[in-house]
Amino acid sequence: MKLWQKNTSAKKEVENFTIGRDPEFDILLAPFDVLASMAHAIMLEKIALLSTSELETLLKGLREIYFEIEKGEFKIDEGVEDVHSQVEFLLTQRYGEVGKKLHSGRSRNDQVLVDLKLYYRTAIRDITEATEELFGLLLELAEKHKADLMPGYTHTQLAMPSSFGLWFGSFAESLAEDMDLLFAAYKLSNKNPLGSAAGYGSSFPLNRTLTTTLLGFEDLHHNVVNAQNSRGKTEKNLSFAMAGIAGTLNKMAADVCIFMNQHFGFISFPDNLTTGSSIMPHKKNPDVFELIRAKTNQIQSIPNQVSFLLTNMTTGYHRDLQLLKELIFPGIETLLDCINMSTFMLKEIKVKKEILNDSFFQHVFSVEVVNDLVLQGIPFRDAYKKVGLDIESGNFQPDQSKVNHIHEGSIGNLCLEEINKKMQLAIGQFDFEQSSTSLKKLIEG
Amino acid sequence: MKLWQKNTSAKKEVENFTIGRDPEFDILLAPFDVLASMAHAIMLEKIALLSTSELETLLKGLREIYFEIEKGEFKIDEGVEDVHSQVEFLLTQRYGEVGKKLHSGRSRNDQVLVDLKLYYRTAIRDITEATEELFGLLLELAEKHKADLMPGYTHTQLAMPSSFGLWFGSFAESLAEDMDLLFAAYKLSNKNPLGSAAGYGSSFPLNRTLTTTLLGFEDLHHNVVNAQNSRGKTEKNLSFAMAGIAGTLNKMAADVCIFMNQHFGFISFPDNLTTGSSIMPHKKNPDVFELIRAKTNQIQSIPNQVSFLLTNMTTGYHRDLQLLKELIFPGIETLLDCINMSTFMLKEIKVKKEILNDSFFQHVFSVEVVNDLVLQGIPFRDAYKKVGLDIESGNFQPDQSKVNHIHEGSIGNLCLEEINKKMQLAIGQFDFEQSSTSLKKLIEG
Amino acid sequence: MKLWQKNTSAKKEVENFTIGRDPEFDILLAPFDVLASMAHAIMLEKIALLSTSELETLLKGLREIYFEIEKGEFKIDEGVEDVHSQVEFLLTQRYGEVGKKLHSGRSRNDQVLVDLKLYYRTAIRDITEATEELFGLLLELAEKHKADLMPGYTHTQLAMPSSFGLWFGSFAESLAEDMDLLFAAYKLSNKNPLGSAAGYGSSFPLNRTLTTTLLGFEDLHHNVVNAQNSRGKTEKNLSFAMAGIAGTLNKMAADVCIFMNQHFGFISFPDNLTTGSSIMPHKKNPDVFELIRAKTNQIQSIPNQVSFLLTNMTTGYHRDLQLLKELIFPGIETLLDCINMSTFMLKEIKVKKEILNDSFFQHVFSVEVVNDLVLQGIPFRDAYKKVGLDIESGNFQPDQSKVNHIHEGSIGNLCLEEINKKMQLAIGQFDFEQSSTSLKKLIEG
Amino acid sequence: MKLWQKNTSAKKEVENFTIGRDPEFDILLAPFDVLASMAHAIMLEKIALLSTSELETLLKGLREIYFEIEKGEFKIDEGVEDVHSQVEFLLTQRYGEVGKKLHSGRSRNDQVLVDLKLYYRTAIRDITEATEELFGLLLELAEKHKADLMPGYTHTQLAMPSSFGLWFGSFAESLAEDMDLLFAAYKLSNKNPLGSAAGYGSSFPLNRTLTTTLLGFEDLHHNVVNAQNSRGKTEKNLSFAMAGIAGTLNKMAADVCIFMNQHFGFISFPDNLTTGSSIMPHKKNPDVFELIRAKTNQIQSIPNQVSFLLTNMTTGYHRDLQLLKELIFPGIETLLDCINMSTFMLKEIKVKKEILNDSFFQHVFSVEVVNDLVLQGIPFRDAYKKVGLDIESGNFQPDQSKVNHIHEGSIGNLCLEEINKKMQLAIGQFDFEQSSTSLKKLIEG
Repeated sequence: MKLWQKNTSAKKEVENFTIGRDPEFDILLAPFDVLASMAHAIMLEKIALLSTSELETLLKGLREIYFEIEKGEFKIDEGVEDVHSQVEFLLTQRYGEVGKKLHSGRSRNDQVLVDLKLYYRTAIRDITEATEELFGLLLELAEKHKADLMPGYTHTQLAMPSSFGLWFGSFAESLAEDMDLLFAAYKLSNKNPLGSAAGYGSSFPLNRTLTTTLLGFEDLHHNVVNAQNSRGKTEKNLSFAMAGIAGTLNKMAADVCIFMNQHFGFISFPDNLTTGSSIMPHKKNPDVFELIRAKTNQIQSIPNQVSFLLTNMTTGYHRDLQLLKELIFPGIETLLDCINMSTFMLKEIKVKKEILNDSFFQHVFSVEVVNDLVLQGIPFRDAYKKVGLDIESGNFQPDQSKVNHIHEGSIGNLCLEEINKKMQLAIGQFDFEQSSTSLKKLIEG
Repeated sequence: MKLWQKNTSAKKEVENFTIGRDPEFDILLAPFDVLASMAHAIMLEKIALLSTSELETLLKGLREIYFEIEKGEFKIDEGVEDVHSQVEFLLTQRYGEVGKKLHSGRSRNDQVLVDLKLYYRTAIRDITEATEELFGLLLELAEKHKADLMPGYTHTQLAMPSSFGLWFGSFAESLAEDMDLLFAAYKLSNKNPLGSAAGYGSSFPLNRTLTTTLLGFEDLHHNVVNAQNSRGKTEKNLSFAMAGIAGTLNKMAADVCIFMNQHFGFISFPDNLTTGSSIMPHKKNPDVFELIRAKTNQIQSIPNQVSFLLTNMTTGYHRDLQLLKELIFPGIETLLDCINMSTFMLKEIKVKKEILNDSFFQHVFSVEVVNDLVLQGIPFRDAYKKVGLDIESGNFQPDQSKVNHIHEGSIGNLCLEEINKKMQLAIGQFDFEQSSTSLKKLIEG
Repeated sequence: MKLWQKNTSAKKEVENFTIGRDPEFDILLAPFDVLASMAHAIMLEKIALLSTSELETLLKGLREIYFEIEKGEFKIDEGVEDVHSQVEFLLTQRYGEVGKKLHSGRSRNDQVLVDLKLYYRTAIRDITEATEELFGLLLELAEKHKADLMPGYTHTQLAMPSSFGLWFGSFAESLAEDMDLLFAAYKLSNKNPLGSAAGYGSSFPLNRTLTTTLLGFEDLHHNVVNAQNSRGKTEKNLSFAMAGIAGTLNKMAADVCIFMNQHFGFISFPDNLTTGSSIMPHKKNPDVFELIRAKTNQIQSIPNQVSFLLTNMTTGYHRDLQLLKELIFPGIETLLDCINMSTFMLKEIKVKKEILNDSFFQHVFSVEVVNDLVLQGIPFRDAYKKVGLDIESGNFQPDQSKVNHIHEGSIGNLCLEEINKKMQLAIGQFDFEQSSTSLKKLIEG
Repeated sequence: MKLWQKNTSAKKEVENFTIGRDPEFDILLAPFDVLASMAHAIMLEKIALLSTSELETLLKGLREIYFEIEKGEFKIDEGVEDVHSQVEFLLTQRYGEVGKKLHSGRSRNDQVLVDLKLYYRTAIRDITEATEELFGLLLELAEKHKADLMPGYTHTQLAMPSSFGLWFGSFAESLAEDMDLLFAAYKLSNKNPLGSAAGYGSSFPLNRTLTTTLLGFEDLHHNVVNAQNSRGKTEKNLSFAMAGIAGTLNKMAADVCIFMNQHFGFISFPDNLTTGSSIMPHKKNPDVFELIRAKTNQIQSIPNQVSFLLTNMTTGYHRDLQLLKELIFPGIETLLDCINMSTFMLKEIKVKKEILNDSFFQHVFSVEVVNDLVLQGIPFRDAYKKVGLDIESGNFQPDQSKVNHIHEGSIGNLCLEEINKKMQLAIGQFDFEQSSTSLKKLIEG
């Protein structure tokens, strides 16, 4: 069954090729499709395209389907093109004529757009919550390990004293800062496209402000052409935000893999969180973090894939856009997996103590000694040269027992509270509760 | 002259290879380098690492250099590694010992970071202003052409009635929505990294809050490791925002190129804005928009290039990051060019009138006819089938004289005021004035 | 069951995260895993690490499994990590001790590498054959439509006379030229990595030349480190070759979508090969070619995804490489689909006749007129100017009835035979038969 | 002066925007433009579009310009659009009417195409020669350090014994294998597009086989539409080949950066090949290899940038293609720099001796011990388990004094001769001499 059935039916080969993986992804859109249809129906009644009793029938039918979806009893029948067709088909089958009236004033174009926006809003909430949990753990670990010094590197070369407190804290603050991109993506997802129909609006006197309110959107895409063109752009912005968080996790994973290398040996995990080799009996490999590194690379390549689908394309819907689901939907799952596995693993991380006491790390104290000379009145550039010569001639013997960093954000002053405040401010921008309340109202009537 | 001069000098080949295009780009950073040095010096005096008279000498010297930069008299001498070295070198040459004291408590790592953040802040202001101008023109054009109908396409196939008002307006709203990504990028650029030194802070009791205020930053990267890791991430987020605007311009350019094709013939430009062919005497080509399309593709590929430099890399500075300038600095120029040329060209655009009156466009009225039937009480799906059969059998004769779209964002109700408000709200988030006032204060003392 | 089972078992979460989609993809590797194990076993007997009767038992067991795979009866048991473990497990279960001897002198690293190379060799053969079929059809269509003129465009503007013969032929020759990249990818896939073990070789006196011959490889990766590093590089080169063919199909699909646009109306397909709209009853959309355009974009983005996984990574296996399968395996399927659907659709393409007879296309004859003047002795640049002025003043009236292009590769001389020869030469480079004969010998004993 | 000058002149803004960086790049094309014009002129005389004396005048004039280019005396005058216009302008200025006849039967489209192909052929030769030099050095270093053992890593974890011989040799063989992609790119560059004019051929009876021979092309793009579509595709294939070599260098650079880290300390370079820090007096940083790593990332991102310009674009020239020069020309320079700097640096590399004698590296011998047990008759999987348990319980004491790897490509049998043969075979495919002889003949007459 197709909503656009012509007299001739499409060849099987065409059908298979064009449907692709849609059935797999459409199931994720099903609850949102029903919710958006409820809002659309309520609006149609307000503008007299449905009678009150027709509306009641439709709402009843849609609620039924919603609960079937919740219970996992909903499926897209063989031969039915997509979730939108299935819902319309069920309504018509169960309640007759009225089912055929629901599509007035909309097209599948704005229907799938609104479904996607609602789905992304939820996905962004999931990402935010998972990130917040990881963030909290990182702050805890930073506090716990604030006195555990480690070397800091530049150019992968020993540089200056650092600490595990700084290291954990750096990823916490990075995640807090990643939330701004996610909020930008959220704002674009939180704009109502419903009523744009096939991208050129409708000759019906639709009330788009009403559906905006009913679905808890913050705003609408006013211009209907722009609403349609937001397909792809919404995904692009979301992929940017996902790539942002993925970038933070990628760096953390890269650090973990090198710190677990035996030459470093700074951190370790319980045996049952590592894996072995089919040939080398001694191996305990950091596979989880290698895969986080790799999977966050996959996520970081999504913006480019999305742009490829969109670029050089004229205004208006193109079937190409269907493939966006294949790029974004698994990407969301992968990102959630990576965040959650990071949390899962870091809960068990073991940190080596007193690393810097070894004379191997002498040189990382060179700036401390320069600074001591500066405090004695020697200009910085001259002190720098003196210590450089001492090192060359083997006369460099710093005191490795103390590090006296006290300024904001340094080893002795991690500013964890300020970082936490930064995260809370960022998260406070999202209005998840409000939008979720609107959707609940629709369901509960 | 190098700040890190060792006893042996680097081979010429190494020098050439490592310096690369830095001198070309560093000139753009020069004013910001001086401003950041002024803030750093003021702070050093506050924590007693400079005497008051030393501070006065340094501020005098830095102001001198600032005005030399403004007058175009500043240059990086042959053999001097970068702008940072040149400034320190000039100060020492002119004012002796005190010049050697300026680098206390900082590294080139946080110095270049703070220069870049200040530069990006300014670049984002430039992009915002250029975008606002284009946006204003698009709103004007939308208003002017609100009654000029054109066909709308889906699948590059004739679909439904649209208008030039809708078309111009769609890009206006798209640009307004692009501002959110730009604001996210701005927030990351507007965080003070100064005091993070080589990425691990300093044993001096630096006052980072003071430099944050002096340089007009909204906030600081608290964690010093995170501050350093923001190198690259700041560029990545900026490149996302640039790719956002570029995406909007790319679609507009793609439309223009196809609408100028003779089969469409919807728009044209004066001859002196088009170009010819070396072999075909009849050609008037839309080269400017083809190049906007191509250049916005270049911009859209920058995020990927930035990510390539950063990915799989461990915490801490790597020399790889130097190449970020080559990616971002020309990208900013290119984006400004594309926005400004769009404005320049659109000022002269000519639009064909009464396109839809031609019977060639009959079919785009099919949904209007379906909707009329629905208003007569026929369920949508049945009306759809009836009109479909009429079309197949050649009995479709719509009234092409009127389009009756009145809902929000449709042909008859472009919501230009709401779209303008969306832009003003977006731009209102930026605090350009405040940060610029702070910098002026530093200069004026 | 894991080949590297330690005393503690990995947590379920770690197992799920690390196994990922491997079982799905490993099934495709199963026959090649068995074949490579047969070659490895034969070689082990030659160097006396297996007795002759042990070898016979192993070969018998492996053949059994091979036929089970062929009959679709093979599966990877729940809890078994991968195809390699499953095969070793079955052998040990069925034939005891000897199963435990098979892994001598190899690691899963070279085992999966050799499986992949054999799989890619076969995939490349499939791609070549599908391409050859499409190529043949294009030549036929070029011949059939050699007299059907159409306009050629530059800058998407009407330019000069072209023909459907030229148009079809251009994609044929492009595909023939794409074969060179595919052959480069084939050469890298056709090098034996077996014996490189975990990337550092073995202390057993393996005979790698023997397995090279047995498996029909053209050559080996001599250096064992390079053999291991070919993981990822092999996929990268294959993805380049796939992106090459995809680029040709993408352009063809872009042309089809625009030529099906009603303003052009140059080509069409039977109704049952197009799709409709849920709202507009008149639509016949070119979805198949839009999806070919989009899917070939996905394929063109694979090289970038592969590079992301590999870049900045040190020598030696990293778990990151596991994800290569997710990128390449579906990419191969998608490419085959796109090639085959192109063939399927083009078999039914209908071409509009006598397009250029319309005075609308007058200007595309401007160069013919210039050339006529040149033949009368006027210098080209002067003739160009004269015709340009005639066009400006409305005095241009070319003869649209004839096109007199006779040189190699032009409208009147399509060189289809030469193009066919180019393809046959390109395909002749591959030695599919030889490698397939080697594998057959292994199976048949 | 423009070849397509219309009555109105283009606005300055349009001119600046459309010319872009062309003058900078066109200088590189100048000698090839002259050579191709010579071949074109000779052919025009053969088909009677030039008289013999006109041909002689043109050849004289072109030779003059060629030698001016060689002497660095050629430049593109202010206001002249490109190199093609400048050459035609000079000829007409110096020799009158005959200069206006040269453009018969060609367009700037095929003119720039043929220039580019000739330029790429030369660039590929340069890349091949630079690669061969680096390759030779790597073989030398492999031979010199064949007895210097080092640990091999998998998962960045200590794995098995390796050697510097293996390590250097791996990059040598990788480079040899990279030549196949380069040869595929060469083949596409080595096809004559001249005579395709604006992409649709000419009504003159051009003799394309003649110009193919004169310019030393191996073959031609027969189909003129395909010839034009090879613009962009040629660059794409070249960028693939460049990305191939860049991938090999990237991995080598990543290894160098980690091996220079103090925890590894496996290799070092003289002080004057490293750089220092502005704050840390002890630093000796591997900047050259960090920049090779970064620059090879830039190169690896070029295929994606090229694809962005090309994708979703219809047949025929688009002005977008102009930007290909900006992507490829600097990319070629960067690749040559990276190859040559690798050679320059590796000439001075110092390798640490007897690394594996330290008990720290005990575990990398675990497979040797397993294999010894296997040789004593214990099945591999049982031996593996026994050694695993010994390691767990601290009873593992291998003999670290000897490594007994003798098979092809392993520590004791580097197969350097075979690897050299692989390179020589690969290089032997290119016919640089032949094409260069053809060009010399043109010059010398």
